[in-house]
Amino acid sequence: MTPEQRAAEFDAADPLAAYRERFTLPEGVIYLDGNSLGALPKATPAAVRCVVEHEWGEGLIRSWNSAGWFEAAGRIGGKIAPLIGAAPHEVIACDSTSVNLFKLIAAALQMRPGRKVILSEPGNFPTDLYMIAGLEQQGLAERRLAERDRLTDALDGDVALLLLTHVHYKTGAMHDMVALTRAAHEAGALVLWDLSHSTGALPVGLNAAQADFAVGCGYKYLCGGPGAPAFAFVAERHHASLKQPLTGWFGHAAPFAFSDDYASAPGIEQLLCGTSPVLGLAALEVGVELIAEIGVERLFQKSQALSEFFLASLKDHGVVLECVSPADSGARGSQLSFRHPQAYAICQALIARGVIGDFRDPDVLRLGFAPAYLSFADIAAAARHLAEVLANEEWQSDEFRQRAAVT
Amino acid sequence: MTPEQRAAEFDAADPLAAYRERFTLPEGVIYLDGNSLGALPKATPAAVRCVVEHEWGEGLIRSWNSAGWFEAAGRIGGKIAPLIGAAPHEVIACDSTSVNLFKLIAAALQMRPGRKVILSEPGNFPTDLYMIAGLEQQGLAERRLAERDRLTDALDGDVALLLLTHVHYKTGAMHDMVALTRAAHEAGALVLWDLSHSTGALPVGLNAAQADFAVGCGYKYLCGGPGAPAFAFVAERHHASLKQPLTGWFGHAAPFAFSDDYASAPGIEQLLCGTSPVLGLAALEVGVELIAEIGVERLFQKSQALSEFFLASLKDHGVVLECVSPADSGARGSQLSFRHPQAYAICQALIARGVIGDFRDPDVLRLGFAPAYLSFADIAAAARHLAEVLANEEWQSDEFRQRAAVT
Repeated sequence: MTPEQRAAEFDAADPLAAYRERFTLPEGVIYLDGNSLGALPKATPAAVRCVVEHEWGEGLIRSWNSAGWFEAAGRIGGKIAPLIGAAPHEVIACDSTSVNLFKLIAAALQMRPGRKVILSEPGNFPTDLYMIAGLEQQGLAERRLAERDRLTDALDGDVALLLLTHVHYKTGAMHDMVALTRAAHEAGALVLWDLSHSTGALPVGLNAAQADFAVGCGYKYLCGGPGAPAFAFVAERHHASLKQPLTGWFGHAAPFAFSDDYASAPGIEQLLCGTSPVLGLAALEVGVELIAEIGVERLFQKSQALSEFFLASLKDHGVVLECVSPADSGARGSQLSFRHPQAYAICQALIARGVIGDFRDPDVLRLGFAPAYLSFADIAAAARHLAEVLANEEWQSDEFRQRAAVT
Repeated sequence: MTPEQRAAEFDAADPLAAYRERFTLPEGVIYLDGNSLGALPKATPAAVRCVVEHEWGEGLIRSWNSAGWFEAAGRIGGKIAPLIGAAPHEVIACDSTSVNLFKLIAAALQMRPGRKVILSEPGNFPTDLYMIAGLEQQGLAERRLAERDRLTDALDGDVALLLLTHVHYKTGAMHDMVALTRAAHEAGALVLWDLSHSTGALPVGLNAAQADFAVGCGYKYLCGGPGAPAFAFVAERHHASLKQPLTGWFGHAAPFAFSDDYASAPGIEQLLCGTSPVLGLAALEVGVELIAEIGVERLFQKSQALSEFFLASLKDHGVVLECVSPADSGARGSQLSFRHPQAYAICQALIARGVIGDFRDPDVLRLGFAPAYLSFADIAAAARHLAEVLANEEWQSDEFRQRAAVT
């Protein structure tokens, strides 16, 4: 059987096949970049239009109460919670992943007086590492990096926080959340998990691992739209003692008392800072609801099947490529990354054929298999395109080798 | 002549009258709360729809380049600049007002080593005061408050930053930006102006005053939508030495090099932190363009005329109310605030009549005169409603005295 014939069988048996119709997917495109910007749910335009035209246009200021704008941040957080193994009152949707990292890194430093080290790994997603830099400039933090197999050794009595991305953005390699959280706690440190490349693609068990903090992205597998609000998790046991430095009015216990002195809200709302971004939250909520409806267990099963089928199809085509993602599909996120000196040009050649993946400096071709809306037929076609690009050496074209900014 | 007859004459002669048609205003509502949430420009729904359905839905990840998403923050900042007397490369649209306050308060502290005091006034808008609290908790700042007539005296050698809201949110009183900026500089301090209640309602001259920093809100007079992205200004002379602590990947000199070490972008882009909120920026851009097209000089002229007409109409109706806004319309923002022990219930009684103003704790009725879309006929009608609410003592109704959260 050809990969295409097998794909037809897989698609016919796929329990998630019908969900593809709940997303807008452009004609002629095979979209393998849902790990960077998730596709548009078909219900989103109407939801956003309702907020803009009805709630804002007609309701005006009254909609803060009548349309539930005040509650949106916590309400959406509560809907994200089951995707990451948290309780609804432990999660809130707000700001960007970067800003939420700052809040929680700074909070950890305040909870571990005398310790200044934030431990992470080299090659972590840049913004995770960069958000330590601002606190270093302020004299509050000290960054320490250790390769992933040396992280446990690097957990000494100076470490306030272990900050890791659960699924690596470039390789898709997944950390052992339970073991690393335990090791950090044994060393007296707290743990902050960046779930940007996990949430909505695979089950995450924050409370099962006894994690302290987490952040994550709204615009990847949650399909919340470009630059969607992010989310943050704080384990309930820390709510009473938490002090985060972005002490804005939306995180106040009584914002409309307009008092001169800050007093933080008691629960997860203390993570709010400025006025909630209502339009962005409206789009995010649609994506979160759709992903939650499908369920992360089923999504992960399909994502594993998709990536294994892709590898098998490449093999059928005789393609030999260095895969830098873990060989075990249970140990990687919903992506496969391949190393090639011409990765950039290969990526461009694929895009010219309608196969949108992405490139990560310096030599990684990253293909994401967002399980909510991809079919096995997409995967078979993508594998064939990649085989042809390599067989024809299409990456030799100057057109594809000239670099521009990409996400 | 009755107020209504005079209103008809004023409207006929109003050079801005036609702009009312560029906004959606609900039937039966007189909207005097544009200072809290600006009305919806009629062009906004199509612009947002284009971003959602075309740029996101069809363009997907490619739109970061092809649809100008990367440039949006700086492009919109450049369009806000002429409204506040700044150069285009000194302003950027990002995050919330609160988050931008944090960046610039912290930056000022780093630029004035040995000084820890942030000077402001009691009763400043809460989030301005609250954002100092987080830095106090971190041991980096010390808040000092002085009544507005004592601010200059309070500027001693410990003050790193004078942080004031240009137009007071509650009273509408306007600070003398030139004189206070000069006084702060003479004391060796920097100045950060919160322009939330100024921008889009009246001319602001940041560079004429040699201001150092400013922030402002996108959802009030700029009509950017609920929770719209805010903006920040840094005078060009500080770009090279600025260090702000929210060092996220969008503020990096080369975000897609994915290096482990932070290096800030050279210009105003160094204020960016996380991924830009594309939907919110799209709506904000429409509002900013429309307000810029009208022009802040003409807007301020009309706003003064509207508020003076309102006061004259109240007088015609024999209403006596304590006005806490400056009597000189040139010294106040686009609002009038009245003190009354039953301000909350009066506000509710007005809302029941379709006149939407707002209430500010404990006893202020705040009426905003957004000049871009209000007519003199609106003002005459609002004055008559207020006179009737007071004459009938409608605020005595239990229905109106029961309090709920309001913005």
